[in-house]
Amino acid sequence: MAREFVCSYTTPIVKTTAGRIRGYRIDSTYTFHGIKYANAKRFQMPTPPEPWEGVRDALSYGYVSPMLNRETAVGEIMVPHRYWPKDENCQYLNVWTQSLDPHAKKPVLVWFHGGGFSDGSSIEQVAYDGENLSKFGDVVVVSVNHRLNILGYLDLSPYGVEKYWNSANVGNADLVASLQWIHDNIANFGGDPENVTIFGQSGGGAKVTSLMQTPSADGLFHKGIVMSGIADRIMSFDNTDSRPLVDAILEELGITASDIEKLETVPYETLAEAYKKVMPAIQAVGGYTGCAPIPNRFYIGDPRIVGFTEHAKTIPVIAGTVVAELGGFAPTLRNRTSMSAEEQIIYLKKYLGSSAEELATLFHSCYPDRPVTDLLLLDTFSRTATKDFIRKKAAFSQSATYNYVFSFVFPMDDGKPAWHCSDLPFFFHNTDKVFICNVPDVSDQLEAQMSGILISFARTGIPSAEGLPEWTACTPDNISTMILDRECRIVHNFDDKLYEIYTPLAPDPHSLHADKEVTVLH
Amino acid sequence: MAREFVCSYTTPIVKTTAGRIRGYRIDSTYTFHGIKYANAKRFQMPTPPEPWEGVRDALSYGYVSPMLNRETAVGEIMVPHRYWPKDENCQYLNVWTQSLDPHAKKPVLVWFHGGGFSDGSSIEQVAYDGENLSKFGDVVVVSVNHRLNILGYLDLSPYGVEKYWNSANVGNADLVASLQWIHDNIANFGGDPENVTIFGQSGGGAKVTSLMQTPSADGLFHKGIVMSGIADRIMSFDNTDSRPLVDAILEELGITASDIEKLETVPYETLAEAYKKVMPAIQAVGGYTGCAPIPNRFYIGDPRIVGFTEHAKTIPVIAGTVVAELGGFAPTLRNRTSMSAEEQIIYLKKYLGSSAEELATLFHSCYPDRPVTDLLLLDTFSRTATKDFIRKKAAFSQSATYNYVFSFVFPMDDGKPAWHCSDLPFFFHNTDKVFICNVPDVSDQLEAQMSGILISFARTGIPSAEGLPEWTACTPDNISTMILDRECRIVHNFDDKLYEIYTPLAPDPHSLHADKEVTVLH
Repeated sequence: MAREFVCSYTTPIVKTTAGRIRGYRIDSTYTFHGIKYANAKRFQMPTPPEPWEGVRDALSYGYVSPMLNRETAVGEIMVPHRYWPKDENCQYLNVWTQSLDPHAKKPVLVWFHGGGFSDGSSIEQVAYDGENLSKFGDVVVVSVNHRLNILGYLDLSPYGVEKYWNSANVGNADLVASLQWIHDNIANFGGDPENVTIFGQSGGGAKVTSLMQTPSADGLFHKGIVMSGIADRIMSFDNTDSRPLVDAILEELGITASDIEKLETVPYETLAEAYKKVMPAIQAVGGYTGCAPIPNRFYIGDPRIVGFTEHAKTIPVIAGTVVAELGGFAPTLRNRTSMSAEEQIIYLKKYLGSSAEELATLFHSCYPDRPVTDLLLLDTFSRTATKDFIRKKAAFSQSATYNYVFSFVFPMDDGKPAWHCSDLPFFFHNTDKVFICNVPDVSDQLEAQMSGILISFARTGIPSAEGLPEWTACTPDNISTMILDRECRIVHNFDDKLYEIYTPLAPDPHSLHADKEVTVLH
Repeated sequence: MAREFVCSYTTPIVKTTAGRIRGYRIDSTYTFHGIKYANAKRFQMPTPPEPWEGVRDALSYGYVSPMLNRETAVGEIMVPHRYWPKDENCQYLNVWTQSLDPHAKKPVLVWFHGGGFSDGSSIEQVAYDGENLSKFGDVVVVSVNHRLNILGYLDLSPYGVEKYWNSANVGNADLVASLQWIHDNIANFGGDPENVTIFGQSGGGAKVTSLMQTPSADGLFHKGIVMSGIADRIMSFDNTDSRPLVDAILEELGITASDIEKLETVPYETLAEAYKKVMPAIQAVGGYTGCAPIPNRFYIGDPRIVGFTEHAKTIPVIAGTVVAELGGFAPTLRNRTSMSAEEQIIYLKKYLGSSAEELATLFHSCYPDRPVTDLLLLDTFSRTATKDFIRKKAAFSQSATYNYVFSFVFPMDDGKPAWHCSDLPFFFHNTDKVFICNVPDVSDQLEAQMSGILISFARTGIPSAEGLPEWTACTPDNISTMILDRECRIVHNFDDKLYEIYTPLAPDPHSLHADKEVTVLH
């Protein structure tokens, strides 16, 4: 059925601090794509956009950051992507809203994409589209592009050039600039600048936690949601001395350290090739490899290591994971649903030895509906680190901390456990766009609940949704976990024993004897 | 509402000549993405894909051909794009079907994308998705990637290396290979190999007409639809001597003519840079510039110039255009809907002088609902050449030739006349995905009619749809044109006089005094 589309000479036009922009309205949703929120010279701090006269169209998504590696389209059925033209000039954001009334004060949800600090974009995944979430929750949704990898996170500060003082973190400085733009402009898009929730998944989750530790972002956001984004070493380096890496890049490019400013004009592709050539040898000896923030006067550091800032202590947080994360990309065992309980134990013993039976019992108590062989796909990437984060954060009474595990079983290969990113179509209310999420009479309810959680948390600071049990906040001694599945339920410290025994034994899921009949072509 | 998604170990799996592949089903539609239909070495003819054991997933779109220029996202509201990873290894096709019964014999519609012979892909535009058309018409839809630009169309034949005999046309040879794959395999996807309709827009339309003139494609397709794809010089060169261009490329790369095979291993980016560097000087003196087919024993040549082959004479054809084509990308005149008739004439006189009044009267008689100032955006790209093609084709009684003009007014800028590509969401039944097409109570009917035309033509060779007047075939003396709009109507030789007077006077639409208030940012 046709919807109402409006994009005229006079509406929808919004005044921003730099000038007027025109978007479009589709039914109730006003949409603005590719708004320039900052400019930046390479390795340097962002500056506000240049003002303009007249009206600029905001009808096409903006450039995304260049990336180090050529893209390949693999596993699109599990994580459908949107590839996009790239340019260093990539400080663009997108807005979806139900109102342009400056007094409407709707909650604002700001999406920071994943891909570590090296890859991805605000529109990289089909699931990231903001229209449905904005409409379902009557909230303002913003998504942000920023500088990535060596453009956003390469420390040149030891070389004595003042303008590079924060080159290790300018990718995050772009994010702060986007939050400043939101603070200054979002009221004209119907949003409340005093109620901004930042949310992100994987690397985007690490962006949320790192901005909690970034003084210049204090007050620019008020709540945080970290999805599958807490893991060891994702936002910190054991070694932060950047000189071996940068010296090697300079040597590779034939540039002397005193001429380091020449790095600003080297084509990105050349710079990236040099980085990729010299980095592995430095990584091999435990050196700094760039491509993630490092602590300095801009950024305090990973809160699990350095402790939470006073501002971070005041931020209510939801931090959760999905059941299989990276293991979910491994093939499932083809004949597992027809195996007897005994056969499943025999299979587990191949990998887990004498602990197989105890682990099967523990796994069954956590996930009673799943074949116990799926234990071998269990998340060993983020769950333990997330609980560590939560225990430390929940020690502060200034704000609540909530936890979830998403354990929906997808209708592929006799039931595929939730992989990294598989929760996003549900959170964004976009299962209509990501077919693999579709289970009639089941997925619609879970989608409403999961997007409802984001919306209620953004609105009130308390996550809730119709049909969900009451969600108790965590304490250092009690990780209350909302299991997000066909029937959502709340459990307490439910998988500690499982992880304690399983973690040291866990095999690489991609090494398993899985289905050899279906080979992934692309 | 959730739909049914199926992708199990055992279904949907289809046997092809090279091996078994697995796709997915969403509700009634079986979908297979990224099926390899051929392999090819650079500049050389395609060969069948290597056979494989087991089952390969066809769940991600395949690589698209590398392109000469960096992509920029502009005008996405008018033509939403899907960018995609690129590789020379790009012979992939996609299938959408409602049946996997080898005896179902559904009509097959094969989409050749536009972008001249240089750009684009089977999925470049959001509008190209095949699911809705397949479902609405119970037809099999196939879309094809192939080699483009200098990879697909650079004539090396004068250099005495036998394997390069057809390098001028290997991009089209890929298309023939895709049609051969369809002929050999489509029955297993529910399709009828004896009822294949090829359709394409812009460069894709030129692919349709050039395959009508390609003997190795005879019998592999049975009907053709050419959308906005007939234009002067789109599929022919005044000068086909490739040596000045290729010599200049070789010199630029430091390769001697006797070492021409070294061109096979030059990185594509290097080859493309060399081509782009030397080509303009050759173009300036009217030399061969590559990037389109040239006649040889594989390809007979543009039928408007060399005449129709015996096979082409038997192919029923629909050939049509949209009302503004390239002019539709120019801004519309902001205040035209509030101008009096007299003011509009005064405005037209600035560009058309003393012919303004007569042209306004003629334009009004053709398009009575439009402000006459929209005359200045009228298509001067394809309409006249299309009528020339039709007059020549209709001289043969072996098959019918039909014509349309799409003149829908889009709900933007007080009514935007149809631009190049704007018809595709309607033909593909994809206006749900391309918001600018949405006009409640109006666009759904036109979409059903336009996709219905494709379907009835594919099924019976006669274009028809509910609510459409009877569509008479053209004769050399009578171009019967179906006006596709809110109310479709059939007219005869309706714009000959308009074009006769307007063509020599037409200004460049982008030079007009249009709306200076809205600047296109991207």
